[in-house]
Amino acid sequence: MTRARLDNLTASLSTPKLDAVVLNPGPTLTYLTGQQFHLMERPVVLFIAPGKVPALVLPELEALKAERFPYKVQVFTYGENPLEWGEAFRKAILALDLDGKQIGVEFRQLRLLEFDYLIAGANNADFPDASEALVQLRLRKDKAEVDAMRRAVKIAQDALEAVIPLIKIGMTERELSGELVIQLLRHGSDPELPFSPIVSSGPNSSNPHASPSDRKLQAGDMLVVDWGATYNHYISDLTRTFAVGEVDAECQKIHKIVQEANAAGRAAGKPGAPCAAVDIAAREVIEKAGYGKYFTHRTGHGIGMEAHEDPYMRGDNQQLLEVGMAYTVEPGIYLPNRNGVRVEDNMVVTETGAESLSDMPREIRVVG
Amino acid sequence: MTRARLDNLTASLSTPKLDAVVLNPGPTLTYLTGQQFHLMERPVVLFIAPGKVPALVLPELEALKAERFPYKVQVFTYGENPLEWGEAFRKAILALDLDGKQIGVEFRQLRLLEFDYLIAGANNADFPDASEALVQLRLRKDKAEVDAMRRAVKIAQDALEAVIPLIKIGMTERELSGELVIQLLRHGSDPELPFSPIVSSGPNSSNPHASPSDRKLQAGDMLVVDWGATYNHYISDLTRTFAVGEVDAECQKIHKIVQEANAAGRAAGKPGAPCAAVDIAAREVIEKAGYGKYFTHRTGHGIGMEAHEDPYMRGDNQQLLEVGMAYTVEPGIYLPNRNGVRVEDNMVVTETGAESLSDMPREIRVVG
Repeated sequence: MTRARLDNLTASLSTPKLDAVVLNPGPTLTYLTGQQFHLMERPVVLFIAPGKVPALVLPELEALKAERFPYKVQVFTYGENPLEWGEAFRKAILALDLDGKQIGVEFRQLRLLEFDYLIAGANNADFPDASEALVQLRLRKDKAEVDAMRRAVKIAQDALEAVIPLIKIGMTERELSGELVIQLLRHGSDPELPFSPIVSSGPNSSNPHASPSDRKLQAGDMLVVDWGATYNHYISDLTRTFAVGEVDAECQKIHKIVQEANAAGRAAGKPGAPCAAVDIAAREVIEKAGYGKYFTHRTGHGIGMEAHEDPYMRGDNQQLLEVGMAYTVEPGIYLPNRNGVRVEDNMVVTETGAESLSDMPREIRVVG
Repeated sequence: MTRARLDNLTASLSTPKLDAVVLNPGPTLTYLTGQQFHLMERPVVLFIAPGKVPALVLPELEALKAERFPYKVQVFTYGENPLEWGEAFRKAILALDLDGKQIGVEFRQLRLLEFDYLIAGANNADFPDASEALVQLRLRKDKAEVDAMRRAVKIAQDALEAVIPLIKIGMTERELSGELVIQLLRHGSDPELPFSPIVSSGPNSSNPHASPSDRKLQAGDMLVVDWGATYNHYISDLTRTFAVGEVDAECQKIHKIVQEANAAGRAAGKPGAPCAAVDIAAREVIEKAGYGKYFTHRTGHGIGMEAHEDPYMRGDNQQLLEVGMAYTVEPGIYLPNRNGVRVEDNMVVTETGAESLSDMPREIRVVG
């Protein structure tokens, strides 16, 4: 992490005509500072304006963090009494001369908590959504970023392989999820996982976003495991679906279809192809097999520092893929209250196509 | 979780003159629904208005979650294209007749993402901060809540006791933190920890909010461990400070002072006492010992579903303690770039005083 990322940002501000941006804790702030801050009841914001020393507002007891920034910042701290917090915001705004200016913010990240201090502290300023410009910064992953994602994929795959022999009929989804988390950490994931693993069996697997429950695995269940690791702020997000003991013919069939859809989606990515092409390639396989109405979500989403980020693999997204963009391919078929299947890989666009960072077997495997 | 919590909320809306509240994913939404939603790029909001069936806006692929609510809700789902999301908001607003109304929101939780859909969807509505009214709902913990917190404390204590024999000179802070997370999960914590453990040694321990680094433990270090577990959405948040091998006389001394300050803070809580009394009791011990300027934060914060919530143990907070309120007592002394000490317990106000849910030895213990 060098100050090059900051320079890229300030250079990009001229296009959307912004005088500054202000960031609160989240992936963009971490990307631009190398430091992780938490969203909490005490606001933390970084003001960035071209040609000026960035201004950081934060609680006194976190002041030391500013020393680890890869560039100089002006620090405005506040104490424990919330009545004094506005003053720190005002000082930072004065230091960067932001009254009446266009100050970009991230609508998906900024809370009314920070926004309220900002509008009170900056007279006649506007706060447009600068997400588009900020998303651009992180859209094309460089080699170090891809290496971190590759490592996050390897950690996740090794962790699940360590758990598979332990899966038994009668084990609960929650127990399996707990063991998987432990193995993710043992294999080197950073402690903050990108998300809690989804472990869903039988009828629960027909809910794409199920939380692990106390349901016990039964013979005949499909078992969906959607999990990931974090390495140096970058994440992986994979899914494999297993058969618990012997499953019926339709389960076998839908798994085969989803696996083919996944392969088609993976093959469709290349520089210059629209994101829609990835979705359409995967969806066509499922539709032709007659299960189109049971594939209820987009084919994938971008990944990097966030489990969901740009670009999105939707049928209506004409955004063109570029070298270094990273995304998931994760088609699924969900038969309500019966069974579900999803197979998910993590892709990076290369000069000639798209590489899957994940290579764990995708065939249906029998467990239990 | 029954619908009683919802009824308490709607009854409370008359005082701040609100026609409705709207909640996005976070502890209040979980408290009122028993369901956990994640903050992501797809907005989820629940509108609650007295005498009306609550309205839930969420992505189609999460629609099944509504069936697990402890009361009936009207569900307004949207598909993958963000251009259609506003329509789901508008339908929910029409269903509850919220145009021109006072709709309370949580400033600390609501993002501009949801806010933007709300102001576009509700004509001439106001969105005041309803945090005060909402905080009231969760302020006094009932028996089931205290039982969950007690369990979260026991899990945390048992996990750290399992790790202590493994602590060795030369181990990194990060390794120790990883092992502690594994033991928290092994001992029954829910996978989403309240926060990543702080493990800070030597000079790093003088930063109250340090992140675990690759620094190796050395003889003579103070070692601060600030950790917690989650059980059924409720959390614990404890700190103990250890001596790595032999530490100097000043380290011994500041540990003893902090331990006395912690005891004084714990003893000061009772129904009718102001929160300030807890802070003052702990702070006096440290000030009298001549280290006042090195105790750089408030004495504690409320805990429950969040690691930081009301009430706050600050010297200027005249809020009166009531039976069932839960909070931390966590005085510290931080000698810049040398060593730090903090000792933290989790308290619940009883009829006659305040009970510490945590009972792990507070004396300085030698490790390594």
